Amino acid sequence: MIPPAFEPETFREQGHALVDQLAEYLHRALRGDLPVLPWRPPATMATAWETPFSEAPASDPGALAALFARVIAEANHLHHPRYVGHQVTAPLPVAALADLVAALLNNGMAVYEMGPSATAIERTVVRFLADRLGFGPGADGVLTSGGSIGNLTALLAARQAKAGYDAWTEGSAGGPPLAVLGSAQAHYCVARAAQIMGWGKAGFVPVAVDDRFRLRPEALDAAFTRALDAGRKPIVVAASACSTATGSFDPLPEIASFCQERGLWLHVDGAHGAAAALSDRTRHLVAGIERADSVVWDAHKMMLVPGLVTAVLFRDGARSYEAFAQQASYLFEGGDPADEWFNVGTRTLECTKRMLGLKLYAALAIHGTKLFGDYVADTFDRARRFAERLAREPDFELLIPPQCNIVCFRHRPEGATDLDALQTTLRRRLIEDGSFYLVQTRLPAGVYLRITIINPLTSDTDLDALVHRLREAAKST
Amino acid sequence: MIPPAFEPETFREQGHALVDQLAEYLHRALRGDLPVLPWRPPATMATAWETPFSEAPASDPGALAALFARVIAEANHLHHPRYVGHQVTAPLPVAALADLVAALLNNGMAVYEMGPSATAIERTVVRFLADRLGFGPGADGVLTSGGSIGNLTALLAARQAKAGYDAWTEGSAGGPPLAVLGSAQAHYCVARAAQIMGWGKAGFVPVAVDDRFRLRPEALDAAFTRALDAGRKPIVVAASACSTATGSFDPLPEIASFCQERGLWLHVDGAHGAAAALSDRTRHLVAGIERADSVVWDAHKMMLVPGLVTAVLFRDGARSYEAFAQQASYLFEGGDPADEWFNVGTRTLECTKRMLGLKLYAALAIHGTKLFGDYVADTFDRARRFAERLAREPDFELLIPPQCNIVCFRHRPEGATDLDALQTTLRRRLIEDGSFYLVQTRLPAGVYLRITIINPLTSDTDLDALVHRLREAAKST
Repeated sequence: MIPPAFEPETFREQGHALVDQLAEYLHRALRGDLPVLPWRPPATMATAWETPFSEAPASDPGALAALFARVIAEANHLHHPRYVGHQVTAPLPVAALADLVAALLNNGMAVYEMGPSATAIERTVVRFLADRLGFGPGADGVLTSGGSIGNLTALLAARQAKAGYDAWTEGSAGGPPLAVLGSAQAHYCVARAAQIMGWGKAGFVPVAVDDRFRLRPEALDAAFTRALDAGRKPIVVAASACSTATGSFDPLPEIASFCQERGLWLHVDGAHGAAAALSDRTRHLVAGIERADSVVWDAHKMMLVPGLVTAVLFRDGARSYEAFAQQASYLFEGGDPADEWFNVGTRTLECTKRMLGLKLYAALAIHGTKLFGDYVADTFDRARRFAERLAREPDFELLIPPQCNIVCFRHRPEGATDLDALQTTLRRRLIEDGSFYLVQTRLPAGVYLRITIINPLTSDTDLDALVHRLREAAKST
Repeated sequence: MIPPAFEPETFREQGHALVDQLAEYLHRALRGDLPVLPWRPPATMATAWETPFSEAPASDPGALAALFARVIAEANHLHHPRYVGHQVTAPLPVAALADLVAALLNNGMAVYEMGPSATAIERTVVRFLADRLGFGPGADGVLTSGGSIGNLTALLAARQAKAGYDAWTEGSAGGPPLAVLGSAQAHYCVARAAQIMGWGKAGFVPVAVDDRFRLRPEALDAAFTRALDAGRKPIVVAASACSTATGSFDPLPEIASFCQERGLWLHVDGAHGAAAALSDRTRHLVAGIERADSVVWDAHKMMLVPGLVTAVLFRDGARSYEAFAQQASYLFEGGDPADEWFNVGTRTLECTKRMLGLKLYAALAIHGTKLFGDYVADTFDRARRFAERLAREPDFELLIPPQCNIVCFRHRPEGATDLDALQTTLRRRLIEDGSFYLVQTRLPAGVYLRITIINPLTSDTDLDALVHRLREAAKST
């Protein structure tokens, strides 16, 4: 007897109803016929979703549809062309459907047996990405749950390869405190990974950046020496491709040469920008990435799939077995871990893992690879055009010419005094009225508005409207 | 103009087709009208899924349905009543649909703005779980991507609270090497977390277990002293509720008292067994859990939702801010982190995070809480009955009376010599013919077959069939 909660016909009915709801959402969001976000303050939102779950099932047969309608209405609408906020993409519908398959089948992936086809699918996707980076046939890697976890995984492999002692077995006590060098603009998770590993705050050594927020390779030497002088052993440089705040690509060829000379591990945090490798028009931004020891690449940023899908790619695939040098008898069969490429849990922070590769596999198989390269190049172009336009407006100030689809700028109407406060006020105004979702960032020069043109539907017209809306909001402050 | 890849009517059509495919899958899997798993060796499976993704979109309009049909056919079928393998659940269809909503909406959750309603939903779910543990109103926590990451998060908080120095800022150099005490049967991720944090192999101090693989509280003192003598500072005991291999619940009241006396942090890895708190019939197994400083609870194990959804719960909610004491200007506003409960990225390893709470919220809201308690208690009962049955069979050997829904046993037909090899052979036989999915575990006494009755559809009849099938397979070896 099938319990009612698993009844396939109920699923069919509820599933069809949901697909119609989501199709309607897509229609409205893509046309901009919804607020970008229905902003409410945290306390109000928390109260609105508080509920004492009852013991009994919901008696109203429409309860699920009503819940989903509410979730859709009260979510941020990333498919709205005026969503230009954080680097999370408006997913391709095909990829979202693939995620439903992954959810219902729920094959785990610690060991091959838990998800044999999921493991094979992951392998294909990983090889595709490694190939696009220009890695050779010896490359390998894994998919994991997000860029922060991916960067930690790569740095664990770097630690094991370069500490000069068996850091996994001996721990920090095995040698001098270690350090990672990275630009002052590196994502916070790089320093955080160092601190998780017990390297402390001084375990992240910031390297000076140029006026476009790119790591200055000629400053590496000084940072390296500074770390040595402080009794540290620097073992890895984490380059940003690109930085989160300003979308700046560190110069990889120069950094790679420095790493080669000093015997350091080169890690590239390409969470956002590794996707530049997908188009001939943008590949120059990541020239040299093929020399990296490890690269992190988030498919949920610039590959149009739902979060989280992060690839951790190793030029020398054998390195991917070094992050976690460990066995569990009920899982792994022992022996040379590389003989067990198919037991991916030996190489990921997760034990059980979602079928992460499927959504990317489906998106690539159905839409073809050109779509992804075009998407990257087109959004980068659109950002450049927007920046050129801002540069011509006397009441706007562009931080730097954008290298990708991230643009930082501020509105500077005549007579404005506290520019930092003004940007914060303007942004809050747009968020609260739901007309745009954009973010802000604090830089040495002050607070800047920041957009990421990550929705492929965002047009030049939408960006014109952003300029207009900011001016209007400024007038009414 | 909407690009074809985002066309809502195409989504509608593909979505309806997929819902029908999945409904058919449910019908067949729940009836057992499919192999439990279509086993193929890793190399064969890898070749089968290799593909050079083409530049152009798939020209066949049926390509997506064909891909999904193949994925469904070649996956493990967790809804099959004879899936009794790893601790990953056959998800409730409602929870899978909720995951589709999460996938398409793709609201990230590092900061409140990225997913306001998702943040509120997570808060409600976290409070529900904390309340079931018997934590008071001061409790708090976060959802994260899996138990391994959850245990690491909790141990980072323990490190910060108990190291005796600011471990986050100073790193391992700030004091003596630290250690976590746990049973020799603790999940491998506990020792792994210690090694990630730079504590080395000696950073995990195994505590002896009794004949039912439960941590012996009277052995804590010796382990503690052993760590001290080795120059270690033990700061935390990680209790298992329950252990993975044998489903053994460590005695929490005694461990809690030991921790209290010594000023240690008590962490409970309740990934599987914290769900015992959901039923009056099973709650006794986790008596004392309300005294823990932190608890990890995987909803994708015993709460019928797709992976990954792990709650990291802190008795004193303020502790949840200590795992990662860090800021990123473009994300967090600064100030007292507890003033920003709604920026959950300050407290999770992930920066961007999937809307993890929604599937659990939907499942609880639609099915009511009783379903979950009954599910836990019923599967535990079923395991007990199966064990009693095995104990009566002369050709079967029960490892220990099960405390939950995990049962370890072996087949011992008359005249069998190499029992370890036999279990391995039998298991492989069943997996390769797709009749059952069960796992094995190596224990001091040898190799045992291991089942987890995690599918609510698995009946006593299915378990009778398992016994029968094992006998048959043994006869034909």
